Order: sequence, then structure tokens, then C-alpha cells
Amino acid sequence: MKPNFSLRLRVFNLNCWGIPYLSKRRGDRMKRLGDFLNMESFDLALLQEVWSEQDFQYLKQKLLPTYPSAHYFRSGIIGSGLCVFSKHPIQEFTQHVYTLNGYPYMIHHGDWFCGKAVGLLVLHLSGLVLNAYVTHLHAEYNRQKDIYLAHRVVQAWELAHFIHHTSKKADVVLLCGDLNLHPKDLGCRLLKEWTGLQDAYLETRDFKAVSGFCISCKTLKTTTGLDPHSGSPLSDHEALMATLCVRHSPPQHSPSSTHGTAENSPLVVVLREALTELDQAVAQAHWWATFAGYVIGLGLLLLAVLCTLAAGGGVTEVAILLWTPSVGLLLGAGAIYTFHMQEAKGLCKARAELQHVLGRAREAQDPGPESQPALILGHQEGSRAEDQ
Amino acid sequence: MKPNFSLRLRVFNLNCWGIPYLSKRRGDRMKRLGDFLNMESFDLALLQEVWSEQDFQYLKQKLLPTYPSAHYFRSGIIGSGLCVFSKHPIQEFTQHVYTLNGYPYMIHHGDWFCGKAVGLLVLHLSGLVLNAYVTHLHAEYNRQKDIYLAHRVVQAWELAHFIHHTSKKADVVLLCGDLNLHPKDLGCRLLKEWTGLQDAYLETRDFKAVSGFCISCKTLKTTTGLDPHSGSPLSDHEALMATLCVRHSPPQHSPSSTHGTAENSPLVVVLREALTELDQAVAQAHWWATFAGYVIGLGLLLLAVLCTLAAGGGVTEVAILLWTPSVGLLLGAGAIYTFHMQEAKGLCKARAELQHVLGRAREAQDPGPESQPALILGHQEGSRAEDQ
Repeated sequence: MKPNFSLRLRVFNLNCWGIPYLSKRRGDRMKRLGDFLNMESFDLALLQEVWSEQDFQYLKQKLLPTYPSAHYFRSGIIGSGLCVFSKHPIQEFTQHVYTLNGYPYMIHHGDWFCGKAVGLLVLHLSGLVLNAYVTHLHAEYNRQKDIYLAHRVVQAWELAHFIHHTSKKADVVLLCGDLNLHPKDLGCRLLKEWTGLQDAYLETRDFKAVSGFCISCKTLKTTTGLDPHSGSPLSDHEALMATLCVRHSPPQHSPSSTHGTAENSPLVVVLREALTELDQAVAQAHWWATFAGYVIGLGLLLLAVLCTLAAGGGVTEVAILLWTPSVGLLLGAGAIYTFHMQEAKGLCKARAELQHVLGRAREAQDPGPESQPALILGHQEGSRAEDQ
Repeated sequence: MKPNFSLRLRVFNLNCWGIPYLSKRRGDRMKRLGDFLNMESFDLALLQEVWSEQDFQYLKQKLLPTYPSAHYFRSGIIGSGLCVFSKHPIQEFTQHVYTLNGYPYMIHHGDWFCGKAVGLLVLHLSGLVLNAYVTHLHAEYNRQKDIYLAHRVVQAWELAHFIHHTSKKADVVLLCGDLNLHPKDLGCRLLKEWTGLQDAYLETRDFKAVSGFCISCKTLKTTTGLDPHSGSPLSDHEALMATLCVRHSPPQHSPSSTHGTAENSPLVVVLREALTELDQAVAQAHWWATFAGYVIGLGLLLLAVLCTLAAGGGVTEVAILLWTPSVGLLLGAGAIYTFHMQEAKGLCKARAELQHVLGRAREAQDPGPESQPALILGHQEGSRAEDQ
């Protein structure tokens, strides 16, 4: 590669608000999104909340001349909602589905039914390996009393872990998506400290090079409630558009203070904070499992009493009437017990991984993420409606 | 690293048959396994079917002086059953839980309740990066009429994909586990063709070097029904013990015919075969979902009739008696519908990945797995009892 090598990359990211039957004017917005993407001809368009595969197929057909490569990340019952359109051939793709993603009985929130995930696509651009990640983390419905905080922290940790393990040969790492995190939130700090990613929103100008490349963010725009051309909004979220410039740069050590091994280094601090959060969540999951266990016992007792009453011929009708709710109670409690035991296992898995990284950071044998590529983090902020 | 560099690695692998309450003489066998591992002092011991975390904790304590590093891979409701004990510090670990793993209503087989997975641990040995993988794929209960074939093929594909994406900076890749596959089975061929892994059982002597290292298998032993020392068996499966020697070797292109792009290259052939298998499985999953959909309709109709009868005061007792089975039918059919829709999504995901790899292989732009490290595949054969 020539020393004066330079690559311009135009990227688009949007949470599309594409819930069938529920999202207003979905068809019209998808059509206008397609027109807009065709007109702007980005290098890469990464979308979230494309819940209907028909919408993806519609966009794929519409965008084919401008974006010949496309992929829809399938997972869970409903799907991940993630898809990507690329002007350049996608060399490889893979995905990781998050272990924890809300509670099945919180039906009105519905996150559990989606297979929230992170998708990876590998592009080869002028001899440079670009790993682009797209993700959508669990929604934040109540910032003051966030019952999903631990799940989102575990998702952020798994996202960081996935990037860490799959980007070892990448020259540039780009993360886009709807993180449902503010820059100072635990999940965001964990992600940045462990991977070395930098936030395009906060540190826009020049990113430092660690792998022989440096990235600068030439332009960074968001929509402001309105479609840049027609005036009416493309989604209930804002789109993010960036022009990045990748240039050669002599390799150097990471300038971040992240990789110190002192007890008060940012990495150690954020790992300890995450561990405290997970300890509480594990205790709570066990509490719910124990509670459900008692309800199961109670349900079995009730069923035994009803059977005895019905057999004795005493109050047969009442006994038969109460049979269905008792069986329902038993099945419901069983499902809650199973779910929270599985939740506890998922939390313990993440806790063991965090403890291991913390242990190695303290041992000072591991100088942190080794020779990471130049990194950029583009995530979406400022949603107008409640984040999903 | 010196040109005459050489590393000896002693590895142990066993499916432990550690099902609480069901596996015979579990406590005694765990104790003897611990004694044996301590006495033999392998570099790495990889275990499957350690279903009880207490058993892992017991072994961890017992093996601490000889194997200071250990990890238990947690997943799903019951767990993955996978764990590992290492004489050398584990630098990093991560895991991937398979998307498909049997059917929840096949309770007597029980695979669905386990979070079958692949675990990765990264070791740094004398400046060499070793990625060791441990896994356990879905059991084969009936070889002639294997209803789990498509699930196992998808698992083998995800395993290959996970190795492909996480081993790009590894010098040596080692896969151990219980694959429930014969060497000529579709899953095994898919795994070998896509990753370039070689089978220690079939190609024991000298593995070719692709990344600057070559591995030879100095000794390869399995138990033969009996504990090598005490005489009574350690498990219902046989243990596999290998001594590997890693040496420097000039990098060369893979000698395998795998990476041709002709229509009859082994990779293209096995990808096409896997796609045919998945097409059938997708059709079957959709058939089951449609069938469950009809049952849901029938259940709803039955409930409506029962409600009308009960309200009319005609045959109230019969209507009330039939209420519970009708609700049960509806819930059961709903669960089966949801499960098979999710199964179809998982199968379609794998199919899209296979199609993409097939497309790229045909385009001849991708010269196959790029500069793969020297590889070895050590998987377990010859189980005496039915594989779980």
C-alpha cells in the first residue's frame, strides 16, 4: 500500500421504526428511505428495526443498482431487525445473539421476543480490511428506574467481547447502531475501555492510529426530525451520516490511559462497577427463582386439595372451575422459575468473563487490547421517541 | 522465535457422562478422573457433559495444584456441560451457543434444555498463540432415521464459522470435543473443508504448515472401556489423549484441494450438499408451523363453542371439564408454532451464510480460508453407549 494512501468512506445509520401494523406510515417511509439512500449513494448503510423481512426484500430490490451487496441478520422469534446495504462486496458476515434481552412476561415492551444481536460484515477496500459492526441493544424505558440496566450492561460486554475476538486481523473497526446508551453510561464506558473504540460524536476530529492507519471524521450529520429532502421524518429516530477518511500513519502505542494496570485505571474502575451491577442482578434473579419456586409448591398443594375435593364429591363444580387457574398458576410459575434460572446463568457467565479480564488487568501481564486497529465508534443519539 | 523452536503439548479429552441422579457412580468416577488428571499432568484437559457446576467446582479444587487455570462454560437452562483445565494461564476465553439444538417437546432426549455451545480459550505458549476449542454437538439417537441431522449440520457450520472468525491471529488451532459425527459425515466434511482443520484420528502423523508452524501427533491413545490405571471405566465414552509437537516450518500454501473454485471442488460439493439438507429442513419446519397454526384455529373454535355452551346453561359441567384440555391444546400448539418459526429462522440464517460462501467460492475471488494457521482436529470417536 502506498504511503500516501487515503480512503473516503461515507456511512449512513438509522433505526427505521419498522414495526408491522404499529409504526405509522411505514410503507411510505421505507420508500422514501430507499429513494434517499439511492440518491446519496453511501458506501455503507446500516439499519436497525427493519422487523419485517418483506421490508428488507423491498429495500434490497430498490437499492440493488447502488448497493449490490446486502444482508439481513436473522435471529430469535421475530428477528434482530438489523440489515446492511453495501456499495462494496461483503466478503464475510457473521453474528452474535445476546444471551440476555429482557423478560418474556414484559409483553408490552416486547424486547425479549426479538433476537437482539450484533452483526459483523468484513469488507476489503483497497487492500484494507474493514470490520463493520451493526447492533441494537435493549431499550431504556425508564432512565430513573431502569429494570433492564444489567441486561444492557451484559449486552454491551458481549458486544465488546465479540468485537475483541473477531477484529484481530482488521485494519479498521466501525461500530454503528442503536446502543440505547448515553456516552457516560456504564455500558458505553465498558465498551470503549475494553475495545479501545472511540466515539465519533465526542471525539470527532482525528482518531489516533494504533495499527498503521488513522481515521478522521470529515463530516458528521444527523437529521433533525425531518427527512433532509422531503421534509417529513424518515423514522421516530434520527439518522446519522458520516464521511470518514482513512489514511496511513506510523503505528504507535494507544494514547489512551485505558491500558494501565493500576487499581484506579479506567478499565479496572469500569470492570469493578460492572461487577457490582451484575452481583445485584444475580441476587435479584435468584430471588425471583426462589419466589417462583414457592409459588410452584403452593400451586401443587392447591391442585392436590382440588383433586381431593372433586374425588370426595363435596364441591365438585367449584373444584373443576378452579382447576384451570391452578394449572395456569403452576405452568406460569414454572416458566418464571426456568427463565430466571437461565437469566442467572447468563449473568454469571458475563460475571466470570469480567472477573477474568479484571484479574488479568491487575496481574499486569496483559498490556490490554494488543495492537488494536484504528477504531471509530458511530452510535446513534438523540432519539425523539422512546427508544425501542 | 528461534528457527529450531519446538513445543510439546499433551492434551486430554473426555465426555464425562456427568448427569446428576442418572449417571451411574458419578461421584466415584469424578474422583478417579481428578486423580488421573493430576497424575498424568496434561497441558490441557477438555471435558464435556460436566452438567453439574458442583462437579466442576470439585474438580477445580482437586486439580488446582496441577492445573491452576480452569473455566466452566455456562449457557442455556442446564448449561453447556463444557469445561477446561489448563496447566498454562488462560489468556482469554469466549463462547458461542448454537442457534439450533433439538426440540423442546423431545423431553426424553433433553438436548434442547442444554445450551450446547463451543468454548474458546486462548493460550500464549512460548510466544505462540494457541486457540483451543471445546464443543459438544447434538446427539445422534438413530443413525438410519436421524431427525436431528439438519440441526447437527447447522451446529457444525456455526462451529466452523466461529473458528474461522476467531482464529485469524492464532498460530495453532486445536478442536476437541464430542462432535457426534463420523469422519465422512456431512457435518464433519463441512467443518474440515471450510476451516482447513485436519483430523488427528485419520491424518495423525504430520500436519502441513500453512502459517509457519507444523504440528505432528507423536502419540494418540484412547481408553478401551477401562480406566488406564484402576481398571473400571471413567465414563460411558472413551477418553482421547494426544501428544502434539509444534515446530517451525516455512509457510506454504495449503496442500489441500479444498480451495479450488471449480464446481466440483470438495468445498463447493459439501456446501451444495448442506444446502440441500437445509432446504428440506426449512420446508419441514414450515410444515410443522402451518400444522400448529391449524390446531390453534381449531382450539380457538372449540373454546368459543365451550363458552357458548356454558353461557347457554346447556351442558355446563362437560363444557367446564373440557375447558382445561382446550386451553392446554391452544397453548401447546402456540408453543410449537413459535418454536418451529424460530427453527425456520435459524435454518434460513445458516442457509444464507452457506449461500454466501458458495457464491464467493464460485466467483473465485476468495482463495479460501486465508493463511490459516497449522491446524489439528482432535475429536472423540467410539463411544460405547449412546452418544448424548
